[in-house]
Amino acid sequence: MEYDIIVVGGGHAGIEASLAAARMGKKTLLVSMLAEQVGATSCNPAVGGLAKGHLVRELDALGGEMGLLTDEAGIQYRILNAAKGPAVRGSRAQIDMDKYRIAARNVILNTPNLDLLQETVEGLLYEEQTVTGVRTNLLNEYRAKRVILTTGTFLKGVVHIGEVKQTAGRFGEFSAENLSDSLRALGLKVGRLKTGTCPRVDSKTIDFSVMEQQPGDELPSPFSFRTDRETFAETKQQLPCYIAYTNEDTHGIIEGNFHRAPLFTGQIEGIGPRYCPSIEDKINRFRDKDRHHLFIEPQTEENTECYINGMSTSLPPDVQQAMVHSVRGMENAKIVRYGYAIEYDYVDPTELKHSLETKKVHHLFLAGQINGTTGYEEAAAQGLMAGINAALSLDGREPLVLGRDEAYIGVLIDDLVTKGTKEPYRMFTSRAEYRLLLREETADIRLGKYGHDAGLIDDATFEKFEAKRLQIEEGAALINATEYTPNKEFLAFLESIGEERVTDKISAQQLIARKSFTREKMLKLLPELSKYDPYIQEQIMIDAKYARYVEKQLDEIEKMKKNISIKIPEGFDFASVKGLSNEIVEKLKTFNPPTLQAASQISGVTPAAIEILHIYIKMAQKKAAG
Amino acid sequence: MEYDIIVVGGGHAGIEASLAAARMGKKTLLVSMLAEQVGATSCNPAVGGLAKGHLVRELDALGGEMGLLTDEAGIQYRILNAAKGPAVRGSRAQIDMDKYRIAARNVILNTPNLDLLQETVEGLLYEEQTVTGVRTNLLNEYRAKRVILTTGTFLKGVVHIGEVKQTAGRFGEFSAENLSDSLRALGLKVGRLKTGTCPRVDSKTIDFSVMEQQPGDELPSPFSFRTDRETFAETKQQLPCYIAYTNEDTHGIIEGNFHRAPLFTGQIEGIGPRYCPSIEDKINRFRDKDRHHLFIEPQTEENTECYINGMSTSLPPDVQQAMVHSVRGMENAKIVRYGYAIEYDYVDPTELKHSLETKKVHHLFLAGQINGTTGYEEAAAQGLMAGINAALSLDGREPLVLGRDEAYIGVLIDDLVTKGTKEPYRMFTSRAEYRLLLREETADIRLGKYGHDAGLIDDATFEKFEAKRLQIEEGAALINATEYTPNKEFLAFLESIGEERVTDKISAQQLIARKSFTREKMLKLLPELSKYDPYIQEQIMIDAKYARYVEKQLDEIEKMKKNISIKIPEGFDFASVKGLSNEIVEKLKTFNPPTLQAASQISGVTPAAIEILHIYIKMAQKKAAG
Repeated sequence: MEYDIIVVGGGHAGIEASLAAARMGKKTLLVSMLAEQVGATSCNPAVGGLAKGHLVRELDALGGEMGLLTDEAGIQYRILNAAKGPAVRGSRAQIDMDKYRIAARNVILNTPNLDLLQETVEGLLYEEQTVTGVRTNLLNEYRAKRVILTTGTFLKGVVHIGEVKQTAGRFGEFSAENLSDSLRALGLKVGRLKTGTCPRVDSKTIDFSVMEQQPGDELPSPFSFRTDRETFAETKQQLPCYIAYTNEDTHGIIEGNFHRAPLFTGQIEGIGPRYCPSIEDKINRFRDKDRHHLFIEPQTEENTECYINGMSTSLPPDVQQAMVHSVRGMENAKIVRYGYAIEYDYVDPTELKHSLETKKVHHLFLAGQINGTTGYEEAAAQGLMAGINAALSLDGREPLVLGRDEAYIGVLIDDLVTKGTKEPYRMFTSRAEYRLLLREETADIRLGKYGHDAGLIDDATFEKFEAKRLQIEEGAALINATEYTPNKEFLAFLESIGEERVTDKISAQQLIARKSFTREKMLKLLPELSKYDPYIQEQIMIDAKYARYVEKQLDEIEKMKKNISIKIPEGFDFASVKGLSNEIVEKLKTFNPPTLQAASQISGVTPAAIEILHIYIKMAQKKAAG
Repeated sequence: MEYDIIVVGGGHAGIEASLAAARMGKKTLLVSMLAEQVGATSCNPAVGGLAKGHLVRELDALGGEMGLLTDEAGIQYRILNAAKGPAVRGSRAQIDMDKYRIAARNVILNTPNLDLLQETVEGLLYEEQTVTGVRTNLLNEYRAKRVILTTGTFLKGVVHIGEVKQTAGRFGEFSAENLSDSLRALGLKVGRLKTGTCPRVDSKTIDFSVMEQQPGDELPSPFSFRTDRETFAETKQQLPCYIAYTNEDTHGIIEGNFHRAPLFTGQIEGIGPRYCPSIEDKINRFRDKDRHHLFIEPQTEENTECYINGMSTSLPPDVQQAMVHSVRGMENAKIVRYGYAIEYDYVDPTELKHSLETKKVHHLFLAGQINGTTGYEEAAAQGLMAGINAALSLDGREPLVLGRDEAYIGVLIDDLVTKGTKEPYRMFTSRAEYRLLLREETADIRLGKYGHDAGLIDDATFEKFEAKRLQIEEGAALINATEYTPNKEFLAFLESIGEERVTDKISAQQLIARKSFTREKMLKLLPELSKYDPYIQEQIMIDAKYARYVEKQLDEIEKMKKNISIKIPEGFDFASVKGLSNEIVEKLKTFNPPTLQAASQISGVTPAAIEILHIYIKMAQKKAAG
């Protein structure tokens, strides 16, 4: 059987990769061990969050599936950081794990050009350094022009619960024991990472009455730009989560069992996610904290099991029980599934091009945890890009590489392939230098064209994206063209809306930029904006408030783009540059890049290093000139 | 952690056993490897069928769960054999596999006294020959007063697909490698069985238009006596199945690959289910048949995958593909999961008492495939009885043992524990000598009292069962008390309803017993019956039609019960009895039973053997007397 594209693994990366490939007209095969577990949420029953919400919106704007699945399976929606600046707000949804899985599998099976097959890939087929297909446990060989690996935690996966180690790709599922040997044989640098998850508790044994309830937003916002906002807000049923806390007893139990923690005994060798630490790690690192938040999240709409978010652990079962019982409201809670850690093989992502194809092995793409990331959203974003780029490359088209100033997805992939990672990488808003340009709600405007070009966003949807863009631009034009003289009438108006008076001419933009200036005031100021729906009005207002900062950021990008073409003088002494790490100096010496652009493409050479280098080059040029 | 009852395995037997135990007030633990797979239908997406439908109704009348789950998850309902006698009709439902699983897990987690834990039981804890708990892969030990094993195909399970063998408890799931060693160590006779399943196909690749559609019944009947019949019939949405056929090409492909069939090459050693053979077995055994039925069954309501019922196979993947493609309408069908065979350990069920407790190991109960049966319904029925009997024994109460004349469940368990089985045992109506007494629709009347006594059927439900019984008895009394004289008026009436005239007095019962006599005619004959709802009228009519046969059958039972107390003369020469197998003669000689009753309880001594023995004893007595 010959395919255009084979995707290995039915997790969040594999779903996006296979759907994108098939929808772009490529004959695609998704190989996954167990159809029932396609789209499983191995960790917490939630999608999105800070910066992760951005990834999902961007993926959605490009024609990915995660946003739609989340809208279908969601049982609670919240905008995090709603009180902070719009750029750092993040959408987050609790999902019904059953519904999510079923919806994902059904989409896969309803998509033309896409076959699903339940086998285990045991190795790659290749000729020299070009991959040509896969070999499975059923002794089947499937040929393909491109192969995308999205293996999650399944490569030589080992589950740890206390002193118990089990070969498993995920709790209760087989690992893929042989596939990563193919990667090693092909010369790819394979490492070992660790991640973990929390215990699950029988809901009927939790006393929710003593916990703080955390409801969803009053008006839930959908994740997908393709979901009708109004119908969604009107019809979506939401469930609450609950907040609980660890306490000194909990911490004492955990500390008293550090000697039995696989994380500390040397049983686990892989490096875990720094920003998603296990509870034993948190207690160890933050000894002064006397409590940690726990979020009690329903795993399904029927709420028969809860996920104890914040209690990721691989401590032994008896310790997990004691930990859980020490928490107020869970004194009698029954654990249904113990938390565990898992170690697995990953590939150093500096082995990748920005297209997510490996540099050493032609036609082999990698996406998701295999590239050293953590998180469903990070995985899905990569899966989508790998799917798109594998398809584009079959057509002899240039890969779609998103800039750091265009998308969080751009930041994610750029960080990975240029800097690599030694620990599971997760996205943060702070990783995006140009985050003011990258608001969640502008993802469709920023990226819809790429999704449309790729054929993943249909014309009708793209027209809706464009209509939104035009309306927002219209609003901005109106705002930018309007100025007020502080005459009696205008001052009376300002007073009527409770705004401070002005003494000089003031632009509409300046007024709206005031912190105190609400959408209601904006409509009074410019009643012409009332014709837009409130969602559009909100976007227009945010743009106006951000306008100056955005302008500055765009200037910086412009400057940076110019700078990047700057030539590095021949014989430049990299060692003389203070503030560069030895590693970077060594690399620069080795590759001797002719321009800053070339320097920036060397793995491990950071944007900060480029900045410093730029300053030194300017100094050297001045010196030479002077 | 100390429990009253631990149930090992979350399949159809384990669900019933754990629910029954917990509902009877026992502190119960269900240990299952993966909560997502609790209630999985490993084979076809259907519940019920001939004789199997009886088991589900009986289980339901006793307070089991399978009927309710089936009513919730069902997507098609049919009464099989509807044209035949009411006693051999069987209800069958297609189910949505996802919904069934989720519903089962949710019931488990919503039931008080019942904990669910996801671990793998690796061994039994015991003191001498009394089991005291279980040991799991997480090094946990759980103590319990009773342990019920419902391990399905998981004990040292080996999956076969062509020449590939994989250690697995079911497709994609871990096996339990160590538990059956405990059983061996305790002296139980452990054997090896085989079963198998069919390939699953991507629905969008099937051309249903060339197949015969098989819709559900116009008025679907629920499985549970506790489901409201009217609401159910009005609201249940149904999906069709489709009928396809193998052909000479299919048979040629299969025959041409016998040398690669694990079933014939010696790769599979366990014995498979004679009455649920794989397609290669069918082709081999019935060489003259030029086609076999295939039923294309949707696995879920969304119908993204179909189960190819009738094509169970462990032939290699390429042969399975060729087989599928040879069928009209599936020329381009894509297999999503290959069919496979699985071998597993089971315990010789003659090791069991009628209570399903083992004779050699105290407090250890076995139910389901571990006892050598096949089928969800057979498993569930045993699970329920094991759960009830484990709970009863904790209270020092007598076990609930259903007679062969009371229930198919009685026949099932009696067959197993007295005769044993060398191949997976499935239920048939022909196995029940007194099947006229055991109609599906009388299960509540027959068995409700036991469910109520056990506390599994609540008072309100039991009152409904009783009301039904009373109405039917009332109707029968009326019918039995009514007689007609062939006067002019009556003859005119007969003519008006198109019935043959009579010359002598005739009872209402005799008239109704006529094949031509419909329910409509019955209501004209006895308008008093109109006050009952049509379902009750139907039952009254069937009882009237069967009355004479049932009477005869009751007589036989009476006689048999008398006979069974007959003494076997001391020194009786068992070897002189013609028609007994050597094995039976040996056993009778060894145990030297004092009565026919005692003889019938010896494993392997069949009801037929008792009949013969009875005749010889009477002959011997006559001889002695004469």
